[in-house]
Amino acid sequence: MATDLEIARAATLQPIGAIAAKAGIPEEALIPFGRHKAKVESGFVQAQAGRPRGRLVLVTGISPTAAGEGKTTTTIGLGDALNALGTRTMICLREPSLGPCFGVKGGATGGGRAQVAPMEDINLHFTGDFHAITAANNLLSAMVDNHLYWGNGLGIDPRRVTWRRAMDMNDRNLRNMVLGLGGAAQGVPREDGFDITVASEVMAIFCLARDLADLQARLGRIIVGQTRDGRSITARDLKADGAMAALLRDALQPNLVQTLEGSPALVHGGPFANIAHGCNSVMATTLGLSLAEVVVTEAGFGADLGAEKFLDIKCPSAGLSPDLGVVVATVRALKMHGGVAKSALGAEDVGAVERGVVNLIRHVENMRKFGLPVLVALNRFTTDTAAEIEAVRHAMARTGAEAFLCTHWGEGAAGAADLARAVRRLLDQGHAQYRPLYDSSLPLAEKLRTIAREIYHAAEVQIPPAVAARLKRFEEMGFGHVPVCVAKTQYSFSADPTRMGAPEGHVLPVREARLSAGAGFVVAVCGDIMTMPGLPRHPAAESIGLDAEGRIEGLF
Amino acid sequence: MATDLEIARAATLQPIGAIAAKAGIPEEALIPFGRHKAKVESGFVQAQAGRPRGRLVLVTGISPTAAGEGKTTTTIGLGDALNALGTRTMICLREPSLGPCFGVKGGATGGGRAQVAPMEDINLHFTGDFHAITAANNLLSAMVDNHLYWGNGLGIDPRRVTWRRAMDMNDRNLRNMVLGLGGAAQGVPREDGFDITVASEVMAIFCLARDLADLQARLGRIIVGQTRDGRSITARDLKADGAMAALLRDALQPNLVQTLEGSPALVHGGPFANIAHGCNSVMATTLGLSLAEVVVTEAGFGADLGAEKFLDIKCPSAGLSPDLGVVVATVRALKMHGGVAKSALGAEDVGAVERGVVNLIRHVENMRKFGLPVLVALNRFTTDTAAEIEAVRHAMARTGAEAFLCTHWGEGAAGAADLARAVRRLLDQGHAQYRPLYDSSLPLAEKLRTIAREIYHAAEVQIPPAVAARLKRFEEMGFGHVPVCVAKTQYSFSADPTRMGAPEGHVLPVREARLSAGAGFVVAVCGDIMTMPGLPRHPAAESIGLDAEGRIEGLF
Repeated sequence: MATDLEIARAATLQPIGAIAAKAGIPEEALIPFGRHKAKVESGFVQAQAGRPRGRLVLVTGISPTAAGEGKTTTTIGLGDALNALGTRTMICLREPSLGPCFGVKGGATGGGRAQVAPMEDINLHFTGDFHAITAANNLLSAMVDNHLYWGNGLGIDPRRVTWRRAMDMNDRNLRNMVLGLGGAAQGVPREDGFDITVASEVMAIFCLARDLADLQARLGRIIVGQTRDGRSITARDLKADGAMAALLRDALQPNLVQTLEGSPALVHGGPFANIAHGCNSVMATTLGLSLAEVVVTEAGFGADLGAEKFLDIKCPSAGLSPDLGVVVATVRALKMHGGVAKSALGAEDVGAVERGVVNLIRHVENMRKFGLPVLVALNRFTTDTAAEIEAVRHAMARTGAEAFLCTHWGEGAAGAADLARAVRRLLDQGHAQYRPLYDSSLPLAEKLRTIAREIYHAAEVQIPPAVAARLKRFEEMGFGHVPVCVAKTQYSFSADPTRMGAPEGHVLPVREARLSAGAGFVVAVCGDIMTMPGLPRHPAAESIGLDAEGRIEGLF
Repeated sequence: MATDLEIARAATLQPIGAIAAKAGIPEEALIPFGRHKAKVESGFVQAQAGRPRGRLVLVTGISPTAAGEGKTTTTIGLGDALNALGTRTMICLREPSLGPCFGVKGGATGGGRAQVAPMEDINLHFTGDFHAITAANNLLSAMVDNHLYWGNGLGIDPRRVTWRRAMDMNDRNLRNMVLGLGGAAQGVPREDGFDITVASEVMAIFCLARDLADLQARLGRIIVGQTRDGRSITARDLKADGAMAALLRDALQPNLVQTLEGSPALVHGGPFANIAHGCNSVMATTLGLSLAEVVVTEAGFGADLGAEKFLDIKCPSAGLSPDLGVVVATVRALKMHGGVAKSALGAEDVGAVERGVVNLIRHVENMRKFGLPVLVALNRFTTDTAAEIEAVRHAMARTGAEAFLCTHWGEGAAGAADLARAVRRLLDQGHAQYRPLYDSSLPLAEKLRTIAREIYHAAEVQIPPAVAARLKRFEEMGFGHVPVCVAKTQYSFSADPTRMGAPEGHVLPVREARLSAGAGFVVAVCGDIMTMPGLPRHPAAESIGLDAEGRIEGLF
């Protein structure tokens, strides 16, 4: 069987101008980066703002397992299939992070016949957006420390600087450090650390900004730390917001690429789905909606984290109104939710499917709480048996959500045609009545309790007094109206990654609350959240290199 | 008077394809980055390698002063003037570093009517080369620490890791740190620090590599540290060279832009001129020579540092044979070398010119030791008086090197026409007999003494026993044949920045010797060399921002 890389290399890509023309983007609005990538000029994006909007389809998934579900692949396959049926469709994806490419995982550009291209470029530097975000993050850090160095006129407490540095690299040694060492001329000693760039608040801001002015305003609101008497110091106090916006100006323009089947795709922004909201940029999604009849986009992790944040954070902030949810599942992953070990997935086990399907059912039911019609995409593997597939279909029929077998990985658009036809039918029926899960006027703690009750099916939320006091403090500071972004394990509805399926009656322990004042949400940290990954014993980087023709090998 | 930014904005740039056509680069070899920047495909660069070569003109300068000399501006003005005279000329410059843009200095794209454009792009992210270099540098760091974390099979001594991390930012707080804190799961505690990206050995390697294979071979030779028993550990030992080369693959292709007068310019690479060799990339220079009748390029700092390294490090390594040297001076700077304070430069002072011109004369005589004919470009300021200019001309006449008054800053190509005609005349005479200052077979200490004696006019070189032992060790390791790269102050021929003019009989104290095994030189550190700058009390970043049309303000 051909690898993703072989399939991608065998494909003949169209000039990016032809893809743009297909998408309704004029040549003069295109900023080419080579022959197969381009940015779309912000002037054009702004001019499109008032245009009639297409329908918005969110692709999300069951709670992820080691078996893999294929959410990005399904997003691409569905987009290709809709285009093949004659529905003008734009695919909106997140940009992959460079760091993890050198660790264990491959790229994040889909797979099989459902890929965006050119995959090497997109997975590495692409158009430089993440580098710009890293630079903006670290300029702010340099200005914080420079302020401390030159007399600290604002009275920042060096022990209370919360703004961390960023790097797009998996590098555990950067997690915790003492810097500014070497004497009075070399800086101000204090504790600090680096997060991976996708975990930076600048990334979240970048993805939520409606335009350049909104970007700069949000950057200015970033809180870098506190004074001894608890006053918050912002990026604007340090006069860093203008230079940060200048560094991000070009990056904020959405990136256009194509799928292997020639569908246009906007790949732009990529925040973490735990301490941030985990969706591609508002700029790209709104551009797509202004151009296409349908936009297909995805959210990170499972629907409890990714879709909830898409629907409670991104959509209200950007004024988006989604029309349909598609939940991706595989028989293999459902069997794991039913208690089968990864090594035993080869054997048929209908009982395990029946036990594990409760995870899928709950995600489907959760999506309906946002007023969305829901479909299920069953991403087929060759090992799936007819009886196992039937078990999923049977279970879904009882929920009223149809499940469609998808084979876009091996067959491209044709493999997602049934799903695409169902998507068109549901969109034509127009039954969506999108509403966020909670009202913005609810107290922060109540918002958190609502998510835990309605989405996680938790019996209780444990908020320690110190965290409760912080939430109150955020409300006093004028941030009571913002949504709550829950950072918890993606492997379970609960905070315990080993509780698969559809656990109930569990306790959600909140360890910490952080205010992302620029992004405009409060992060409730529930469990260990890693914001700087490490490399494995034998990192993928060891086998990455160039072949005799200078092509990159070993990346995927 | 119009500012550099106003002049740049008023200019109408040509499509980069038109510039490429003028330079002899076919459309299909061009990788566009927007409308006014492009990379030239490495396949084309390689195919050109056997083509007849143009002549190579090096623009260098007197010992720099606070008055400014205008070396980049003169390189651009001379290139424009040669093109205007009908000599097909390519300008080869270094890329500016992003970090310093937020500190005190403006950009590094020339000035007045002698600029390369688009200046905002070139000064900020440009085509992402420096970001790629930063990523490659830091991937190696991550792999070093990851190796320590997973059992340290190679036996690296964590106290003897010499490979530092890099960031393209002025950030003094990153100079010295202890990282890897937080317990066994968080890394391996050790001392480390960040250098600014231009100081990374990856940058020097990038600029000296002849092609991708040479790049990867050099990356593999990088020494990251030692074992307890003194064995060197390389990037290849860590299997990092392939992934680093993959990160740099696209960046290694030279960047094409234009001057405000429409001359083609290759702006590519930008290593420090103290701990590295301070010239643009070999890839760009050789590409330029394969395309143009004349290539005009520049070296960093004054001729004692920049030109010496160009002629003793870059040219031998790349097999280049330069044809002419141009030394840039200003009346103002010569007056400072003659003892006048910057605040008193407004008043005529012929005596100071006569005293200070010794600095210029020595640089001219030094250049001749490499077998090069030399011209002087006197970059005119409006405050220069006729008597002062005559004093320079008179002094130079005695040396046999003609001095030409240049006004390209205000007048563009026309202002450097006399200089350009003289350049053509000398190139036609073909008297150059380039030779490096020393033979590669000399012992390292002897190479250093030769530079100190012949170029700096030092009476003595102080090499402490520990440094002498290190030089011996480098020779035993097989690096005796490499050139020596001296890191010392650029403000004086001596190691004392306050000794202006043409000091003699001084002592050059060598503090440290470092082996840059990948770049292929030994660095002799003479004095305090800063590899991570800081920001001033009021950094330029505070006044950088976007105007109502989203254009960048305050950067220059």
